[in-house]
Amino acid sequence: MNTQPILIAGQWRQADARDSFHAVNPATGQPLPDRYPVSSYADCDAALTAATAAAAYLRSMPGDRIADFLEKYAERIERRSAELVETAQLETALPRAPRLAEVELPRTTNQMRQAAAAARDGSWRLPTIDTRANLRSCLAPLGPVCVFGPNNFPFAFGSVSGGDFAAAIAAGNPVIAKANTSHPATTRLLAEEALAAQQQTDMPPGTVQLLYRLDHADGLRLVGDRRVGASGYTGSRSAGLALKAAADAAGRPIYLELSSINPVVILPGALRERLEAIAEEFVGSGLLGTGQFCTSPGLLILIQDPASDTLLRLIGQKYGQASVGTLLSAGVAQSLGAGVAALVRAGARLAASSTTGPSDRFCHPNTLLVATARQFLLDPETMQTELFGNAALAVVADDVAQAVQVIGHLEGNLTGCIYSAASGADDPDYDRLAPGLRARVGRLLNDKMPTGVAVSPAMNHGGPYPATGHPGFTAVGIPAAIRRFAALHCYDQVRPHRLPECLRDGAPQTDMWRLVDGRWTQGDIAAR
Amino acid sequence: MNTQPILIAGQWRQADARDSFHAVNPATGQPLPDRYPVSSYADCDAALTAATAAAAYLRSMPGDRIADFLEKYAERIERRSAELVETAQLETALPRAPRLAEVELPRTTNQMRQAAAAARDGSWRLPTIDTRANLRSCLAPLGPVCVFGPNNFPFAFGSVSGGDFAAAIAAGNPVIAKANTSHPATTRLLAEEALAAQQQTDMPPGTVQLLYRLDHADGLRLVGDRRVGASGYTGSRSAGLALKAAADAAGRPIYLELSSINPVVILPGALRERLEAIAEEFVGSGLLGTGQFCTSPGLLILIQDPASDTLLRLIGQKYGQASVGTLLSAGVAQSLGAGVAALVRAGARLAASSTTGPSDRFCHPNTLLVATARQFLLDPETMQTELFGNAALAVVADDVAQAVQVIGHLEGNLTGCIYSAASGADDPDYDRLAPGLRARVGRLLNDKMPTGVAVSPAMNHGGPYPATGHPGFTAVGIPAAIRRFAALHCYDQVRPHRLPECLRDGAPQTDMWRLVDGRWTQGDIAAR
Repeated sequence: MNTQPILIAGQWRQADARDSFHAVNPATGQPLPDRYPVSSYADCDAALTAATAAAAYLRSMPGDRIADFLEKYAERIERRSAELVETAQLETALPRAPRLAEVELPRTTNQMRQAAAAARDGSWRLPTIDTRANLRSCLAPLGPVCVFGPNNFPFAFGSVSGGDFAAAIAAGNPVIAKANTSHPATTRLLAEEALAAQQQTDMPPGTVQLLYRLDHADGLRLVGDRRVGASGYTGSRSAGLALKAAADAAGRPIYLELSSINPVVILPGALRERLEAIAEEFVGSGLLGTGQFCTSPGLLILIQDPASDTLLRLIGQKYGQASVGTLLSAGVAQSLGAGVAALVRAGARLAASSTTGPSDRFCHPNTLLVATARQFLLDPETMQTELFGNAALAVVADDVAQAVQVIGHLEGNLTGCIYSAASGADDPDYDRLAPGLRARVGRLLNDKMPTGVAVSPAMNHGGPYPATGHPGFTAVGIPAAIRRFAALHCYDQVRPHRLPECLRDGAPQTDMWRLVDGRWTQGDIAAR
Repeated sequence: MNTQPILIAGQWRQADARDSFHAVNPATGQPLPDRYPVSSYADCDAALTAATAAAAYLRSMPGDRIADFLEKYAERIERRSAELVETAQLETALPRAPRLAEVELPRTTNQMRQAAAAARDGSWRLPTIDTRANLRSCLAPLGPVCVFGPNNFPFAFGSVSGGDFAAAIAAGNPVIAKANTSHPATTRLLAEEALAAQQQTDMPPGTVQLLYRLDHADGLRLVGDRRVGASGYTGSRSAGLALKAAADAAGRPIYLELSSINPVVILPGALRERLEAIAEEFVGSGLLGTGQFCTSPGLLILIQDPASDTLLRLIGQKYGQASVGTLLSAGVAQSLGAGVAALVRAGARLAASSTTGPSDRFCHPNTLLVATARQFLLDPETMQTELFGNAALAVVADDVAQAVQVIGHLEGNLTGCIYSAASGADDPDYDRLAPGLRARVGRLLNDKMPTGVAVSPAMNHGGPYPATGHPGFTAVGIPAAIRRFAALHCYDQVRPHRLPECLRDGAPQTDMWRLVDGRWTQGDIAAR
């Protein structure tokens, strides 16, 4: 069986394959030509051996060398962008432009360069020095990181190119990438560039490695392997929770980005001011990327009001008229259909549904469901079924008090939005609704839809369980995302020449910020 | 059955008890008079209801009000110190002075005041502002925190007074304390003062609550309850891992401090310079508190050398001559005896053992075991059995290469020490040994024993699994310990008057540090 080689210890080599698979073109439903291996644990083991050796070497590597690698890799991605976009388009059916070429690819290299800058600067380590006690601490690499990327961002969240990848590398860890099986060729091209950059900048051979697919049991074994420092996973809740259980049982940190329905509350005063614009924003955000974003607004919460009725009618019309996008895979289409059916069984009404026309592509009608808050409260669990794709549920509450109850039943989400009147007319209602929503989401927005996750130090792309596995961490935003892949290292009376550079008395050679005796400073440490 | 009342929602009330227990005086083996309840889940449920209400109130409470509470509580502890010390001495057999009165109690109130200062200042929240994107984020309270305290520090790690308690409160969370069952009366006195301080400073009734004991199943249910924000646990590995599994399965963060044998490597050059002093330091640290510290040095790693033999002889003599301290409980004494027996079965030799004399108190001879590195490497798991108490294992390696192998087999530990010659003669060996040890411990020390954990911002009282559940966090040291009990909250285009104080444009009213557009500043935000 001739399959594409895997990348282990700086070499492309045949996998010890149990089986093989091929990607599928979502626009035709037809298989793409290349076959990719399902690796056995022997491949994981080989990757772990090389990663362990790389980790020992990377641990003391200066940040600017790591930055060089990330920057070279970003350049190489840009040089190969046409082929990358073409390949990703075939595998995901996401539009070449603007999406892949003008939005996602630049975001990916920008993020990589931000990670490089952070690695060079070193402030992400939060170096903390107590001169009186001569105690010094900083964050430090924690060892090989396994990255499991999602299907919906082949570049920006890709296992060998995305946010978790860049963060893990910037922290000084090697990465074992597990490709998302919906876009193996895209991942292969990226890994080719990563390898070339790795060689060009003299990084150890096990810095970036790539496997395409694992049996379920081997995936669980991998994240729990004693040699693994941590794992990052973005994807479906069921697979993520299985990996979490395996990693938790072995005491290995795992960062997860699971499901999120991203509630959007729209208050009547806001609708009275700008109903049409809000309808437009909701439809634009909800159907963007055929709704296949972690932060796609999947739950609209309204208060009973004529304006709310009008809004729903208008959204329904737009959903019916909008062209129907192609979904990433047969699995996504099936899950979306099953989710819509579950909500209908729980009492939601199909308020709008477009037609898709006969086609072999993977798709689902644009769908708007409507339920009363009373129906929602009868079965809040089912009513929070994630509709990953071009469908959303609107819940209409009798009054603000009932909307507060709905919010009180929400699980953890990545985002939550409240639209309120610019006049201040909705402010008393906002004040009743916001505290409950705030506690249940990572990012709270005003008058703005949740899609569009800026790579900013102040971003939080995270949230309470089950949106993620821990409410204190973010997957997007540097330096915070880097700090996930780090261990806290304290040095107690360690002799000066043995300290890592960032903890020495002299001024850092970069603009690094250090917390010295309770003050943040970029300078050296005053003589004691 | 008349048992001491539990503290729920600001009231001392009878437990819904399944059973009762009493503490035992370790110095006599006799039960102490008071009986304490084993609560049913109805008590947990009542505590969670009150804590949830308190959390909603505390969430937006200014830091200085939380600081007032902690400071008033610290004052009250000091005013009642004589009774607290007396009671703790009866329940733990720890010496009144210096230990309880002069070391642990002042440490406890100092730590509480540091937490208060951090709450008042607000810098612990790491407020981060991106003015261009108008994204603002900070850490924020995450909800009720359950604290399970250990047996060995009735004040400083106590469930209602210690580091986890102070950190959780400083972050703005209510605490449900589960007393350590070895010192319920001490915990009760502390909770009385906490309640008085809570009333004095007008904190919500569910801020501090106390249960004494739970059935195993109820403990697991508690840490996994949806209403719990996070838990903190310090204690035995087996109980901790059961709680971890329950919390993990429910997606609730839990911070654990489990076992640690705290390896100490002593290189021959150091011994040639100051053998007697090192022996004295080791014995002093190892027998301090009858060895019942998380950071007690339990594993001595030596290189075959005449000086190493002399060191072991000297330590053995001192162990034999030192008076034998009283252990905290019958359970501690039993575990210690079982651990020593396990090591002997695995090949360790009993090199020194004191006599305890006939007594009803809980005790175990001061014990030094010796094994070769070869023996260690044959069964590294058993050889790392924690000897919690006055016993230690010395492992003698043939050479530095073999010592590197021993270190390579170590599990995660809180601390690791290397003693080397001041002359620099050991430096090449240090360089071979340090990287492996560094990766396996939270705090690396030079020429210093690990007991004595300063409450410093640069401290790390944490380490890789199984020392703790996550290598990135510390249980001691402010502000880092506070950040464990927090969620990351991002505000995206949220209107200025709705932002939390720490994220507004104006200069903070405290000395709070904020990361504004990549620069740490205490000032306001320049007009954009």
